Amino acid sequence: MTHDLETIAANAAAAAVPFAETPPRDRAAALVAVAAALEANADELVGIAMTETGLTEPRLRGELKRTAVQLRLFADTIVDGGYLDVRIDAADPDFVLGPRPDVRRYLVPVGPIVNFAASNFPFAFSVAGGDTAAALAAGCPVILKGHSGHPELSRRTAEVVAAALDTAGMPDGVFQLVTGQAEGVAILQDPRVKAGSFTGSINAGRLLADLAAARPAPIPFYGELGSVNPVFVTQGAIAERGAELAAGYVASVAGSAGQLCTKPGFVFVPSGHGLDDAIADAAAPVAPHRLLNPRIAAGYRARRDEILAAAGVRVVASGGIEIDGEEHGWATPTIVAVSLDDLIAGREALLDEAFGPLSVLVEHEPGTDLAALVPTLFEGNLTATVHAASGEADAALLALVRVLTEHAGRVLFGGWPTGVAVTPAMQHGGPWPATTNDSSTSVGTAAISRFLRPVAYQGASEQLLPAPLQTANPWGLPQSFSPAGESAHWGRPVAIG
Amino acid sequence: MTHDLETIAANAAAAAVPFAETPPRDRAAALVAVAAALEANADELVGIAMTETGLTEPRLRGELKRTAVQLRLFADTIVDGGYLDVRIDAADPDFVLGPRPDVRRYLVPVGPIVNFAASNFPFAFSVAGGDTAAALAAGCPVILKGHSGHPELSRRTAEVVAAALDTAGMPDGVFQLVTGQAEGVAILQDPRVKAGSFTGSINAGRLLADLAAARPAPIPFYGELGSVNPVFVTQGAIAERGAELAAGYVASVAGSAGQLCTKPGFVFVPSGHGLDDAIADAAAPVAPHRLLNPRIAAGYRARRDEILAAAGVRVVASGGIEIDGEEHGWATPTIVAVSLDDLIAGREALLDEAFGPLSVLVEHEPGTDLAALVPTLFEGNLTATVHAASGEADAALLALVRVLTEHAGRVLFGGWPTGVAVTPAMQHGGPWPATTNDSSTSVGTAAISRFLRPVAYQGASEQLLPAPLQTANPWGLPQSFSPAGESAHWGRPVAIG
Repeated sequence: MTHDLETIAANAAAAAVPFAETPPRDRAAALVAVAAALEANADELVGIAMTETGLTEPRLRGELKRTAVQLRLFADTIVDGGYLDVRIDAADPDFVLGPRPDVRRYLVPVGPIVNFAASNFPFAFSVAGGDTAAALAAGCPVILKGHSGHPELSRRTAEVVAAALDTAGMPDGVFQLVTGQAEGVAILQDPRVKAGSFTGSINAGRLLADLAAARPAPIPFYGELGSVNPVFVTQGAIAERGAELAAGYVASVAGSAGQLCTKPGFVFVPSGHGLDDAIADAAAPVAPHRLLNPRIAAGYRARRDEILAAAGVRVVASGGIEIDGEEHGWATPTIVAVSLDDLIAGREALLDEAFGPLSVLVEHEPGTDLAALVPTLFEGNLTATVHAASGEADAALLALVRVLTEHAGRVLFGGWPTGVAVTPAMQHGGPWPATTNDSSTSVGTAAISRFLRPVAYQGASEQLLPAPLQTANPWGLPQSFSPAGESAHWGRPVAIG
Repeated sequence: MTHDLETIAANAAAAAVPFAETPPRDRAAALVAVAAALEANADELVGIAMTETGLTEPRLRGELKRTAVQLRLFADTIVDGGYLDVRIDAADPDFVLGPRPDVRRYLVPVGPIVNFAASNFPFAFSVAGGDTAAALAAGCPVILKGHSGHPELSRRTAEVVAAALDTAGMPDGVFQLVTGQAEGVAILQDPRVKAGSFTGSINAGRLLADLAAARPAPIPFYGELGSVNPVFVTQGAIAERGAELAAGYVASVAGSAGQLCTKPGFVFVPSGHGLDDAIADAAAPVAPHRLLNPRIAAGYRARRDEILAAAGVRVVASGGIEIDGEEHGWATPTIVAVSLDDLIAGREALLDEAFGPLSVLVEHEPGTDLAALVPTLFEGNLTATVHAASGEADAALLALVRVLTEHAGRVLFGGWPTGVAVTPAMQHGGPWPATTNDSSTSVGTAAISRFLRPVAYQGASEQLLPAPLQTANPWGLPQSFSPAGESAHWGRPVAIG
């Protein structure tokens, strides 16, 4: 480890205790200050982001706003305090297994975390994005591994974040930036780092997850990797709103040039759906959109060629990609169709994710058992979507929905999976390879719990208890209380015989 | 994989969906039925356990009762339904980032799990123990890897559990037993298995955790491994209740021949504590107790010899171990003392766990900075204990407590760490190597969440929603509701400036 990384790890470790001990209201005010600072610097930051990523100004302004809103939501969440899961068992001389002591449990920050930023969301999944907001909300110092795709934006955003945290009185070392692949790998393995988070490719995510698991002291690693987000459209939905579906589909594939983890990669439709013209018409006016960087452009061009060359593939909207003088790729949406049989026969070429504005219509015959099909085609996904007619709820559809919940973290009815609301109930995660750890989410307030661990105090006097566990409850948090005497009744509400 | 294991994995996978769909009240009644069946067969089961483990009848009867109580507590927990963490975001046309759909999130069972039983708790951490109860409560089929230390008890308990679940109407395949190391390793790697749990040694636990992480699709693995449970006694506590402390200490070390994961392995006392005679007197009348099996006896004898031979070790209560004609070891408690300096100098020989009735008094000079010392001696532990005088709460003590919460999952004040209450607030886990995964507990109702994963439904009609997410709320569960309109106010309660 270089001297710089040693300093960074030491700084983060030194910040861990004072940061963990900040009252939630102060930490929340610091999050709000970061949100305000991002907005105050929006013109400059969005300008750098446009140059470095090729994403559009409206998209980037919206993403910056989302990033600020996320920080404010998390501020409210920690002030509310329910996320600490405070549980208090009263001492109980009549406990069914013998006298039991007073036991009080809550969640504490795990310590310094390293967050690997993504390329495709330069605000919302990067320096000041969801993982950073969740870790800071939890009370964990953040070491941010900047993405090489937007280095200047990473540097400036980190300055803005660190300055806002400093002004708000947070400890030194609570937010630091590192850059470089080797540096990221080294810091993940530092014993002072207690958890990792990541958004990116399956290959990179798996590599890092394996390193985290192989440490002398393993740590949790929350990686969001690959997802193809299958969509299932019934004949009834097409009859009811075919043109609207075609337009929504193209918009979801074309937005941000398809460089979204929730882009609908496969759309299952009944043969004879008749949507080709509406899809082609919706795609035709879409202007070329620059891909994030030359590496992604080259990868997308090769993947697109591979799909177009696969047996049985029919072009519905051709689209294309042009490489400019700086090796940047400019893409328009490509929609192809393939029969279910050809998809199955050509699965090696067809089933992997295409990162860019390409999607595959899969045409199946009436009566196809889609519920049985799903496990044979897909592992885990972030999302799965069903478009049915209003009121449609036959046994086949219910069986399909049931199977989709086993293979995805979020199942949508109507709408399209791109555009993830930042809310208390949002779930952004899913079975492998959508994520390395399916027990959590990287969007929404439940994301905070990834960076917490439980600690119980047994038999402690009020003066030795931390504020959340005190009977006086000075922060006014929700406390779940188990009174003495109740153990005699356990099991009775559901007693048998 | 042999034919038998293939059948077992297939059975568990087939049971997963129908078991997940059992209403909580039915699943709770099944847990209560298992509890009743264990109690109805207590005489036979305790008899087998005495022969196979050498543990005493009172201990085993108490442990069986605890196991039954645990099942009843979990039954109540799933009927209450709070463990499902139901969150409902209302659709919101005025959402700050643009109209948001209705999103509803809850936790669903992960699918079949494999649970590796421990040797030292033939009921509470074995076939029908905490991990089994938690997984069944969650709605996950259980494949139980029986421990070779009590094969007949494992077989009979599994019969009792499976029969009770069957009579209660649970699906076939919901509980199955496998035996053999190679078989356990194979089933953990079967793609149909979705999580693992384990209680045992650091070596075996790390091996299995590594296998779980290295699968093509990694799965969570919850292993409880090694812990030495340091105790810190102040001069004030000794002055107040020295004799009581000596007696409590010996009882905690001697119980179940020290073969408990929470046995106090190191007790830090001020030099000149004067407790030697009281400890020796308390240890003298303890009768020899059989160790669990010949392998543990041989390991304990070697470990004890190593500690007795280390430089600076003084015997306070000699104890011993005799090997009988069947290679079983019969042990009495050994308490030794060593200066802090000698502990540090001899850390290679002294600091590892001694699995059996041996504990080390560590004598330190007045003014020793214990808070600074802890991180240099210990990684993670299940517990840490403080004995102080009533009202004692000086800065040094507060600093020590603060550090202990970073190194242990449960911090006790007074009392001894053995004897873990099964309650909502209990925490039985801790930083590596106490557990492989510090985000959870293996005792208490929070243990259920290890076997759940979140799923969100977006824009679903009432008829397509599972019962817990329906507005009608047919099971009467707690539902956390986020109304429309509130996003405009996020961050305001803690606004700055």
